[in-house]
Amino acid sequence: MNDFTFYSPTYFVFGKERENEAGKYIKKFYGSRVLIHYGGVSAVKSGLIDKIKLSLEKEGLYYKELGGVKPNPRDGMVYKGIELCRNEKIDFILAVGGGSVIDSAKAIALGTPYAGDFWDFYADRSLTANASALPVGTVLTIAAAGSEGSSDSVITKEEGMLKRATGGECLRPKFSILDPALTQTLPAYQTACGATDIMAHVFERYFTNTKRVETTDRLCEAILMAMIHETPKAIADPDDYEARANIMWAGMVAHNDICGVGREQDWNSHWLEHEVSSLTDCAHGAGLAVIMPAWMEYVCAHDIARFCKVACRVWGCPMDYDNPESTARAGIKAFRDFLRSIGMPTSLEELGATASDILYLVKTLGLNGKKTGGFLPLGEEDAENIYKIACRDKRF
Amino acid sequence: MNDFTFYSPTYFVFGKERENEAGKYIKKFYGSRVLIHYGGVSAVKSGLIDKIKLSLEKEGLYYKELGGVKPNPRDGMVYKGIELCRNEKIDFILAVGGGSVIDSAKAIALGTPYAGDFWDFYADRSLTANASALPVGTVLTIAAAGSEGSSDSVITKEEGMLKRATGGECLRPKFSILDPALTQTLPAYQTACGATDIMAHVFERYFTNTKRVETTDRLCEAILMAMIHETPKAIADPDDYEARANIMWAGMVAHNDICGVGREQDWNSHWLEHEVSSLTDCAHGAGLAVIMPAWMEYVCAHDIARFCKVACRVWGCPMDYDNPESTARAGIKAFRDFLRSIGMPTSLEELGATASDILYLVKTLGLNGKKTGGFLPLGEEDAENIYKIACRDKRF
Repeated sequence: MNDFTFYSPTYFVFGKERENEAGKYIKKFYGSRVLIHYGGVSAVKSGLIDKIKLSLEKEGLYYKELGGVKPNPRDGMVYKGIELCRNEKIDFILAVGGGSVIDSAKAIALGTPYAGDFWDFYADRSLTANASALPVGTVLTIAAAGSEGSSDSVITKEEGMLKRATGGECLRPKFSILDPALTQTLPAYQTACGATDIMAHVFERYFTNTKRVETTDRLCEAILMAMIHETPKAIADPDDYEARANIMWAGMVAHNDICGVGREQDWNSHWLEHEVSSLTDCAHGAGLAVIMPAWMEYVCAHDIARFCKVACRVWGCPMDYDNPESTARAGIKAFRDFLRSIGMPTSLEELGATASDILYLVKTLGLNGKKTGGFLPLGEEDAENIYKIACRDKRF
Repeated sequence: MNDFTFYSPTYFVFGKERENEAGKYIKKFYGSRVLIHYGGVSAVKSGLIDKIKLSLEKEGLYYKELGGVKPNPRDGMVYKGIELCRNEKIDFILAVGGGSVIDSAKAIALGTPYAGDFWDFYADRSLTANASALPVGTVLTIAAAGSEGSSDSVITKEEGMLKRATGGECLRPKFSILDPALTQTLPAYQTACGATDIMAHVFERYFTNTKRVETTDRLCEAILMAMIHETPKAIADPDDYEARANIMWAGMVAHNDICGVGREQDWNSHWLEHEVSSLTDCAHGAGLAVIMPAWMEYVCAHDIARFCKVACRVWGCPMDYDNPESTARAGIKAFRDFLRSIGMPTSLEELGATASDILYLVKTLGLNGKKTGGFLPLGEEDAENIYKIACRDKRF
């Protein structure tokens, strides 16, 4: 096990109707002038934003609103938010939405007190380690990104559609309100995209070269098995509160890093996917459903034993001791079959990209001859091969 | 799943030699006048206390020492610590040791700013919810109690040997330094006691009447399986750093409550054990090894399905669909066999108590006709029956 530090000081408030306590928790963390940041009209139409406003008014908090965050959140909105926060002397940002809204809020929180361009933190991740940011709280409306408990944020620069991530301690939300009932209105497709993202966060940690990490291996497997058990229930019955609740907590645990400490992580699937969703504007989870199994097929031979471990323990594949690679590949097939069973795409074509886009995708990765990734470092040729695997229609 | 809040703001610093960073982290959390609190002479003899002092001196921190905390820590030491903290205007307590030292430090931290008797918080747990306390940091030397990441503290009042617990947000350590190498000098017996305590913390959460808690069920099972895998390695080779590291992180995760949120918990085994270690002064883990399987035997019929779940998933028992109770009981037997395999006692006699002590044990529980526990509420007669089961020598 590698040395590490782990710090997850977010106050989680979990359960039905707890969004009504937003004002109370903003006060607990010393907010007085609040930006309510959200996405599309559904948050307004559903009455959620009104509930939040009422909760803030009850506590006598001043607030401004900024809606309109899009999936794969853009830098344009971030600049708008920073200007608003400065003009209004905002001291707390409340993100009401999913990962896109929370990531946008985190970017605004970073940029507001910073004299330079907020994009600096996304161009050079290391800058964020010692940065300061406005405090952020969240009211989560989709279980997926794990941004409600993580120190990360991903933003897309509209010029060139560059999707980049940053991360640092100052970006952990002060509190996150998780009401599973808020996710009951999500269509099955979005629910499945969220579930895929959660499982991908675990796999990015699971595939490691670090030896003797049984405790975090088991924690990763636990989240995967819980997701395999609960996701079909939420798809079959969107109002299954209990399934939503299990998925919501799994989504946080999958990405606050308690399952990932002390082990080298990979993150190549996320990195390959970011270019896909930049190009096609597909949901991040849908992109991962296409890329991650393709990545697994490509890197499987690097550590057959580890792929067998997840195949047997998580997917219940029988171990073929005469041919371990067949077991390893059976686990990848089981993952892809599961993704298809919950309605996810499994080829680039289904996302609106084709083989002719591959060279563009590889170029925008910006590798310039370097390799990246913690499990099996990959270069441009590898990326091209994985995108090619992702192109094949896997239904046959 | 039940509603909950979860807040675990401890900064964990994990790895070899990281105790040398103690001074740095005390400064990070605004300490300037420090009480170094520890147990027996081994911490001094091993050079650990000198290392800690050097680290504090490097940061220019003022400190006083208070050693001599005993297992099952006593109120006498707590009063001594409170007086010292007040006289020396201590603003940070650094606990260097295991659960006993950390719990003693937490009690001193609670008592120092409090005008009344610190025992008030242990006599009435609810008082701690809104209390304030001096900040505490820890350098952990045994993986067991989980106090390094928990909001709990257990102290024994010498008069009448009453062992009582309290808990509240103010008691979460600011930081905890976890160096697995520090646990390599522990004798096999203490290592096994610690492992038993860790597993018991999971079981107290696992046995619940709350329905649909698959995510936390799986997390609990993950910790149990990791402990079953790693404990025998640490017993066989005390210098197996990797086994120590896996156990140390499992011990934290087992008790910071990330596996226990949203579900009713039980805690009757801990409560029944506290009287045993009060009477015999046995190690808490040894007491749990005797009490917990006895408790399981007694309550098993209350939820055969849940006992089958742990038997099949964790212990690998085959499911007997014609006779589920036999599967449930096979899981309990597997737990007891495991405990014996790591050198734990499994009867009260081995702890120095006999059947003639049972009435005294039951009386000191202080039930006065009430029932307690979250899985199956138990009264005096139940307690007596469980102590009787615990009396039987299980080796035959």
